[in-house]
Amino acid sequence: MDETVRQHKIVLDESEMPTTWYNIIPDLPEPPPPALHPGTLEPAGPDDFAPLFPMDLIMQEVTTDRYVDIPGAVLDVYRQWRPTPLFRAHRLEQALGTPARIYYKYEGVSPAGSHKPNTAVPQAYYNAKAGVKKLTTETGAGQWGTALAFACALFDLECEVWQVGASYDQKPYRRLMIEAFGGVVHRSPSPLTEAGRRFLEIDPNHPGSLGIAISEAVEIAAPDPETRYALGSVLNHVLLHQTIIGEEAILQLAKAGETGPDVIVGCTGGGSNFAGLAFPFLREKLDGKISPIIRAVEPASCPSLTRGTYAYDFGDTAGMTPLMKMHTLGHDFVPDPIHAGGLRYHGMSPLISHVYELGLMEAISVPQTECFAAGVQFARTEGILPAPEPTHAIAAAIQEALRAKETGEETVILTALCGHGHFDLAAYDAYLAGRMVDEDVTAERIAEGMATIPSVG
Amino acid sequence: MDETVRQHKIVLDESEMPTTWYNIIPDLPEPPPPALHPGTLEPAGPDDFAPLFPMDLIMQEVTTDRYVDIPGAVLDVYRQWRPTPLFRAHRLEQALGTPARIYYKYEGVSPAGSHKPNTAVPQAYYNAKAGVKKLTTETGAGQWGTALAFACALFDLECEVWQVGASYDQKPYRRLMIEAFGGVVHRSPSPLTEAGRRFLEIDPNHPGSLGIAISEAVEIAAPDPETRYALGSVLNHVLLHQTIIGEEAILQLAKAGETGPDVIVGCTGGGSNFAGLAFPFLREKLDGKISPIIRAVEPASCPSLTRGTYAYDFGDTAGMTPLMKMHTLGHDFVPDPIHAGGLRYHGMSPLISHVYELGLMEAISVPQTECFAAGVQFARTEGILPAPEPTHAIAAAIQEALRAKETGEETVILTALCGHGHFDLAAYDAYLAGRMVDEDVTAERIAEGMATIPSVG
Repeated sequence: MDETVRQHKIVLDESEMPTTWYNIIPDLPEPPPPALHPGTLEPAGPDDFAPLFPMDLIMQEVTTDRYVDIPGAVLDVYRQWRPTPLFRAHRLEQALGTPARIYYKYEGVSPAGSHKPNTAVPQAYYNAKAGVKKLTTETGAGQWGTALAFACALFDLECEVWQVGASYDQKPYRRLMIEAFGGVVHRSPSPLTEAGRRFLEIDPNHPGSLGIAISEAVEIAAPDPETRYALGSVLNHVLLHQTIIGEEAILQLAKAGETGPDVIVGCTGGGSNFAGLAFPFLREKLDGKISPIIRAVEPASCPSLTRGTYAYDFGDTAGMTPLMKMHTLGHDFVPDPIHAGGLRYHGMSPLISHVYELGLMEAISVPQTECFAAGVQFARTEGILPAPEPTHAIAAAIQEALRAKETGEETVILTALCGHGHFDLAAYDAYLAGRMVDEDVTAERIAEGMATIPSVG
Repeated sequence: MDETVRQHKIVLDESEMPTTWYNIIPDLPEPPPPALHPGTLEPAGPDDFAPLFPMDLIMQEVTTDRYVDIPGAVLDVYRQWRPTPLFRAHRLEQALGTPARIYYKYEGVSPAGSHKPNTAVPQAYYNAKAGVKKLTTETGAGQWGTALAFACALFDLECEVWQVGASYDQKPYRRLMIEAFGGVVHRSPSPLTEAGRRFLEIDPNHPGSLGIAISEAVEIAAPDPETRYALGSVLNHVLLHQTIIGEEAILQLAKAGETGPDVIVGCTGGGSNFAGLAFPFLREKLDGKISPIIRAVEPASCPSLTRGTYAYDFGDTAGMTPLMKMHTLGHDFVPDPIHAGGLRYHGMSPLISHVYELGLMEAISVPQTECFAAGVQFARTEGILPAPEPTHAIAAAIQEALRAKETGEETVILTALCGHGHFDLAAYDAYLAGRMVDEDVTAERIAEGMATIPSVG
């Protein structure tokens, strides 16, 4: 019962909210390899993306401008929950007995409960501006589908979501939340698409994967001039929109009196949350102002950075997208149905993959029981129940805090708590009841996945 | 796509957070009638409450001090999520086409997702300070049980929760959240208590009620010197702790440039959320500074203020608590299993009942389909999915905004959005699928409930 006044949350005023997104590409020592057209293997141009995205987003995908203005209508929506708070984890530190100072940027205060609205809102805005009537998308755990349904409600767009079968079955509340916002949800694979029917023939209860769900959403969007597709991670423009997280965190850490973080850890599935937090700090690092370790944390069951290969591969399972150079387990790799559905993606964002290859960041993987143990400890000290995805980041932050305890160093650790776990309680139940086991992805399965990577150039 | 800069949320700095709770009793024209010992029918003294509550809380229950200092250790926890934001509902106003300005104080940002931690934290603190080892309690929808489990985790107390059977069956995620915070949950009625066994004999699948769950939690706490009981609403000290909501809202409305609200609407079950918002404004009204209409909104299926009687009755179903003078439907009244489990209480806070009898506030009831329609409209405009309880307040705010549309008046409407609906999606599903019907509580059922009210004096 410490009665001293401690600052728990560092808040910014609405007027202090950044009004630009940050694009790391012009600051990198070399540009990332281009996406390739799957037929010609030539670099894909704006026209190749036009059936899927409005031109404003395609231009953001390829821009070399360092900063991109956030439209006023997007800022207006952001202001409902942004700037988000940066918390100092005093009670977790105390429980760990660490001299480290742990900060977490909390994105769970958004309407959808995660960082996803940061990009869902501008994507809906630019599509509405281009006269699009409907957006299709995939969703895993459902964070992205919820965010897009919310954004579509605000900009009067229809929203149709293919949810990975395993998550659809496990998490009915997520589907219901999407429906409450006015979206329509299909279990993927679905009988509505060629791609879906193909997998249903193999197994009528196919658990699905993000790769399959993407194929379905793309298949519906591409031929319809009034329908476009929206992706919740992976692509440059998505990462761009998420950089508001890191931009705010830079201002907030300074307000807290810190000169900078020593270690930044973030969970990675497609990579948008991680990039959103880390890229603005990486800019400061490239400028020589700070020198943090930047570490991605991925699930042991879907280790694209730590066990995948860096190669051109499809973004979806049916092979309908342009080829992207990225760390991949192979577009046919179907990850075990671990509880962190948002991290079950065979590839890694091409831009993050490139940054990793340049040696500007590191990556580790963590098994799921260690993650849930961290999540429970976090809930019982900080009072927030994290989604399964950010428990990976919290587990890594705790690893670092315990190292600091050994060395006695006052390490400043920064992470992003990208969403709450209110729809993931069945997973906590499995963990608390001792029913959760760590997955072991065999070398054979990795090799099988790799074998599906097309050979390019 | 309005591009003008609109202020959505009015925030306070941690340093602006009130450091006292407000007690309305000394400001009322006459004091509320005392609680009575059920055996002697004499006014109950502190000793009568001692088996249930620590002395600090008993003193707060009977204090006539206008302000009570919030302990530093409680402020330290509050600062994690307080001050909570006050939102201007621009997009809802636009959808309604109303000249009214609608403000809502959002308590869903707390770790438990509702206003309940405002009292759970001080209750856990005072119990821990008194050397108590375990707290027992009841919970309906689960908001209160979650809040108490969170607070107990922070102050190293065990937490045992009896959850109303109907909600336990409908909302497994709430139970899981309580367990994630370290609490233990029983379905009520349970075989663990005399009171529970009595109802299980009548019906082994008895749906339970808050009154029954209270009887069970009290029965376990009373004889054990290391265990106390915690109540999430109804009592004076609980309402006291919630006044921080209204105190913050007063500062925030002033920051928004408003001279005061014209109408305050809040949902009432036991009454703590309503009192927390309204009592500080009622102080200003009694002082002659402002003159808002203050209106309680209750569910049509549990209309204690609008159809109950003002009489001495038990707080629980088994008749173990002191007798309290309040608006009641009779302690044996078992409300229909409507979706707003937190409002299914046969009585109304004695202090609110007294204020109502004094003519200082009004009350209405609203059927549940109107509430869920309001909840869906709110979700699709404001982006926050309200718990079923505050949809009652939102429905009343919309009624008022539509009246303003007719008259053309710029009515300033204030309400509290006391929690989010992330655990209540099955109810939204029932509504959206057209399976929800309005309850009609017959005069016979009301009369049956009333017949169980003891005749006193």
